[in-house]
Amino acid sequence: MKKLPDLDSILKASKRIEKYIHRTPVLTSENIDQLTNSRLFFKCENFQKAGAFKSRGALNAVFSLTVEELNRGVCTHSSGNHAAALARAAGLRNTKAFIVMPNNSSKVKINAVKHYGGEITFCESNLQSRESSLLKIKEKTNALEIHPYNDYRIIAGQATAARELFEQAGFLDIIMAPVGGGGLMSGTALVTHYMSPEILIFGAEPKGADDAFRSLVEGKLIPSVNPKTIADGLLTSLGSLTFPIIQEYVDRIYTVTETGILKAMKLVWERMKMIIEPSSAVPLAAVLEYPEDFRNKRVGIIISGGNVDLDKIPWLT
Amino acid sequence: MKKLPDLDSILKASKRIEKYIHRTPVLTSENIDQLTNSRLFFKCENFQKAGAFKSRGALNAVFSLTVEELNRGVCTHSSGNHAAALARAAGLRNTKAFIVMPNNSSKVKINAVKHYGGEITFCESNLQSRESSLLKIKEKTNALEIHPYNDYRIIAGQATAARELFEQAGFLDIIMAPVGGGGLMSGTALVTHYMSPEILIFGAEPKGADDAFRSLVEGKLIPSVNPKTIADGLLTSLGSLTFPIIQEYVDRIYTVTETGILKAMKLVWERMKMIIEPSSAVPLAAVLEYPEDFRNKRVGIIISGGNVDLDKIPWLT
Repeated sequence: MKKLPDLDSILKASKRIEKYIHRTPVLTSENIDQLTNSRLFFKCENFQKAGAFKSRGALNAVFSLTVEELNRGVCTHSSGNHAAALARAAGLRNTKAFIVMPNNSSKVKINAVKHYGGEITFCESNLQSRESSLLKIKEKTNALEIHPYNDYRIIAGQATAARELFEQAGFLDIIMAPVGGGGLMSGTALVTHYMSPEILIFGAEPKGADDAFRSLVEGKLIPSVNPKTIADGLLTSLGSLTFPIIQEYVDRIYTVTETGILKAMKLVWERMKMIIEPSSAVPLAAVLEYPEDFRNKRVGIIISGGNVDLDKIPWLT
Repeated sequence: MKKLPDLDSILKASKRIEKYIHRTPVLTSENIDQLTNSRLFFKCENFQKAGAFKSRGALNAVFSLTVEELNRGVCTHSSGNHAAALARAAGLRNTKAFIVMPNNSSKVKINAVKHYGGEITFCESNLQSRESSLLKIKEKTNALEIHPYNDYRIIAGQATAARELFEQAGFLDIIMAPVGGGGLMSGTALVTHYMSPEILIFGAEPKGADDAFRSLVEGKLIPSVNPKTIADGLLTSLGSLTFPIIQEYVDRIYTVTETGILKAMKLVWERMKMIIEPSSAVPLAAVLEYPEDFRNKRVGIIISGGNVDLDKIPWLT
């Protein structure tokens, strides 16, 4: 896909992947609504296959490939959810997935990639090492790179979560997603613009990895340098394809503190009985920190994933 | 309600409570299905209001009361989920709930009762102290006792979870629930008998609190003496109303080890990203311990609740 996904390509992505994903539930919480004076609709991609929305984009990309492309196998570098999602998608089409992972990736995420049959190559935990390791893999295997977010097929796939949310929650005033590389945010923004242009589109990111916020302020892409946050899914910076979409369609990016992220995460575990990873708590942290912006509003929040190492729970370690 | 709930009274209970409960989702897990060689449908009452199926029975009971009865207030003794559910139901009808709780009840459960406006009286952690404290409350307030399980209105209310599950999961070979006092188990058994008599009805309980198993073997009600299990919702013994229903309609009671319960609980947290309390893990523990009985079967499992103290996670303490 060479050009910006239109509504038709997002609807086609929905059709293409529907057999291989969960139509995840939208849950609400009386308690959290009372606490925030708003009405929150959580689209629970933590219950998605492979534990995250990333399954949508990876499936859309892999199921868009020709037989010739498929036979080459696919590859990517990813510390987490995209890696597992791509390994699963490749397995469903009987092709190989070569995954470059930083050697400090969490055990849970490494095990997930192995579970789905991905072939892992470990590298150092920096972008340079990730890219050079991936280059070697590509040279050796001729596998096709599927970038975790800077790819229109991925963006169209991620957009399908918000499309479902509109059907499930009815009218919304605001839709929110966390912002890492911007795949989920840009997909969410596009489909909202196409289907319900009256909805305000908000993003949220940690203050320690606020490249989207800064890029919007400056009007140009400013990657994060040494980002630091417990929300490990949001360490990446926007890409050349995701930034312009976010710049055009996202109304505001909120930035939140680490304390706020942890508080929101524990609140969801406690009140909603569901396991979300720190990255998923970032939009709720924004609602808690800026309640006046959400008062009496119907807010759709995309919960991005639930992959947490249960032997290292943040408030117990 | 003086006689055994028939199908009509269960359907009426569904209607009576539907505005005040979540129609909880039924979730599945590719991973756990592969592990067990079965197809499991989890009815997620951990996402229910007040965090447990108990909301169903309490609402059905409280919303069945006459205005005169309501004005007296309601009372009960409960260490946990019934207490919060009754306090919430009473609040919705603008009446008082007087709750006797053992002084070693978990902080989460105490806070939930307070949150819903219940008036708590603490007692010693034994049945005698619970009953004598409740008697004092009844004498003082004239409140109407709503027993946690030995009450046909409660049983009819709990039956509504399985009724929804049938609609959501389609055809099932087996339905399973954990067995404590037997409210959920007897309701589940009744509605299954009425609506889908071909489905096998299984219960599961901890070996450390196996009064239902022993009562069925002996053909008479044998309460537990000093039951001991991490599944704190299952410490209670069957009652005079729940035992005969279970005796007539339940095909088998499985008993499982503490290790098995913990393993099943952690598996659900890890693979399904949802928080279930130990009691809820007991049926899955039975599937894991007796896989041959469930091979290639479609099994509905009622996840009873998700109220866990997140500062005391069993495998981390």
